[in-house]
Amino acid sequence: MNKLPENPIGIFDSGIGGLTVAHAIKSLMPHEHMIYFGDTAHLPYGDKSEAAIQAFSVKIANVLLQKKCKVIVIACHSASSAAFELLKEYVRHEAHVINVIDPMIEFVSQKFSGAQVGLIGTKRTVQSDVYSKKLKELNKNITLHSLATPLLAPMIEEGFFNNKISGDIVAQYLSDSSLGELDALILGCTHYPLIKKEIEDFYKGRTQVLDSSLVAAQSLHSFLLSEGLLNNASKPESHFFVSDYTESFEASTRLFFGQNLRLEAHRLWD
Amino acid sequence: MNKLPENPIGIFDSGIGGLTVAHAIKSLMPHEHMIYFGDTAHLPYGDKSEAAIQAFSVKIANVLLQKKCKVIVIACHSASSAAFELLKEYVRHEAHVINVIDPMIEFVSQKFSGAQVGLIGTKRTVQSDVYSKKLKELNKNITLHSLATPLLAPMIEEGFFNNKISGDIVAQYLSDSSLGELDALILGCTHYPLIKKEIEDFYKGRTQVLDSSLVAAQSLHSFLLSEGLLNNASKPESHFFVSDYTESFEASTRLFFGQNLRLEAHRLWD
Repeated sequence: MNKLPENPIGIFDSGIGGLTVAHAIKSLMPHEHMIYFGDTAHLPYGDKSEAAIQAFSVKIANVLLQKKCKVIVIACHSASSAAFELLKEYVRHEAHVINVIDPMIEFVSQKFSGAQVGLIGTKRTVQSDVYSKKLKELNKNITLHSLATPLLAPMIEEGFFNNKISGDIVAQYLSDSSLGELDALILGCTHYPLIKKEIEDFYKGRTQVLDSSLVAAQSLHSFLLSEGLLNNASKPESHFFVSDYTESFEASTRLFFGQNLRLEAHRLWD
Repeated sequence: MNKLPENPIGIFDSGIGGLTVAHAIKSLMPHEHMIYFGDTAHLPYGDKSEAAIQAFSVKIANVLLQKKCKVIVIACHSASSAAFELLKEYVRHEAHVINVIDPMIEFVSQKFSGAQVGLIGTKRTVQSDVYSKKLKELNKNITLHSLATPLLAPMIEEGFFNNKISGDIVAQYLSDSSLGELDALILGCTHYPLIKKEIEDFYKGRTQVLDSSLVAAQSLHSFLLSEGLLNNASKPESHFFVSDYTESFEASTRLFFGQNLRLEAHRLWD
């Protein structure tokens, strides 16, 4: 039973993209201890099978539970769609599990009833159909238009953003007929906040661009507040673990977290 | 001791890019049995640590040895640079180990003595410095200019090639000042044969573009011939294993092998 205010918030992702979620959480809740786990040995999850992502997620949950996390944030859309139900069952009462999809579903259903809403993300996220199933259940007459945009995450990781090439790739994807004219577009991958401005530029104000990392952090804040689980540590600590360490990952953390971090190696496959 | 003509050729890669090598081998030696292993659970290798790639490579070698492969072809530049020496030691007399780097080193040192030679590949391949070390040892006065081009492999995998966007990305990389004017360019990643034409178009005949998959297949052929290990099976069989199965991998095999393949799942991490 890890659910105590002074225990850390656990966050995991297939790699370092989930640092956009960690950054949003840190900004909103600066007095929380934080444990981040990036499964860089298995990244990217977007093209892995559901079974593989589930197996990796359970192994990571074991690490986070052992480090006494009060809540586990699945900061990855592919893992949220493949492993959320499993992790809730697996973790049970030990900790609370939050994903990056449900907060967005709630937000969209409140603000965009009857609207045309787009979703871009990895193959895994889009093929899982989890957004359209959950939106349908809420009966808000929202029409969802989904498109897998698998080149965007590696494009961002390799530093191609805010330039002509990234603009062309974004434009080619967003011009796809399967999206059409949209009232709002969900950024269904934790990498995409980094190209939010380029996507807004493409739509020239016609379409509202929705940042899942921000919405998830806000939802986590409300939850901790309502459960009396918010911390007010005067010296909050953050640790960032990866299942495979390389210098280039460490260098890329600045992109996603706004500052350089020290990554600690924690092997998963041994 | 698997070294018998009737035993299969084993080939492995981090994913399906190594199918360009498998295809070159199949074209040159149509009467060989073939076992292909794509470590799709851990792909891509290009940004993994040396230790991780070594551990994965040993696990795959175990599978290929168990399937009685007479030769193990490391059809991946990142694994060739990280794990070739280890695998030679590990496999010893049981089978012969071949990589995709040494045949190219031999080819370049014979044809491009005194020349300016470029190399493009993953971060792992370029950072390993293996090409420049091996070329230096041969004392042919070849100057090597290397550039990591990490977006090219995902770009190709996602079907962005022979179009304007891929042309722009290729041009941006190849215009990098670290390459300069080249007599020849080594394609240091098994994905790149798919964009050989675009790269040749960029250089407009000024620079010879060297396909490692082809050169490795030719070297394997010479070796099997000289050792009396060539097969002449009337019904050669090929099997393609992956450590994580998805339909999208299977669909992408056509890109790399020229035809659709049936992929068989063989987990590595259990």
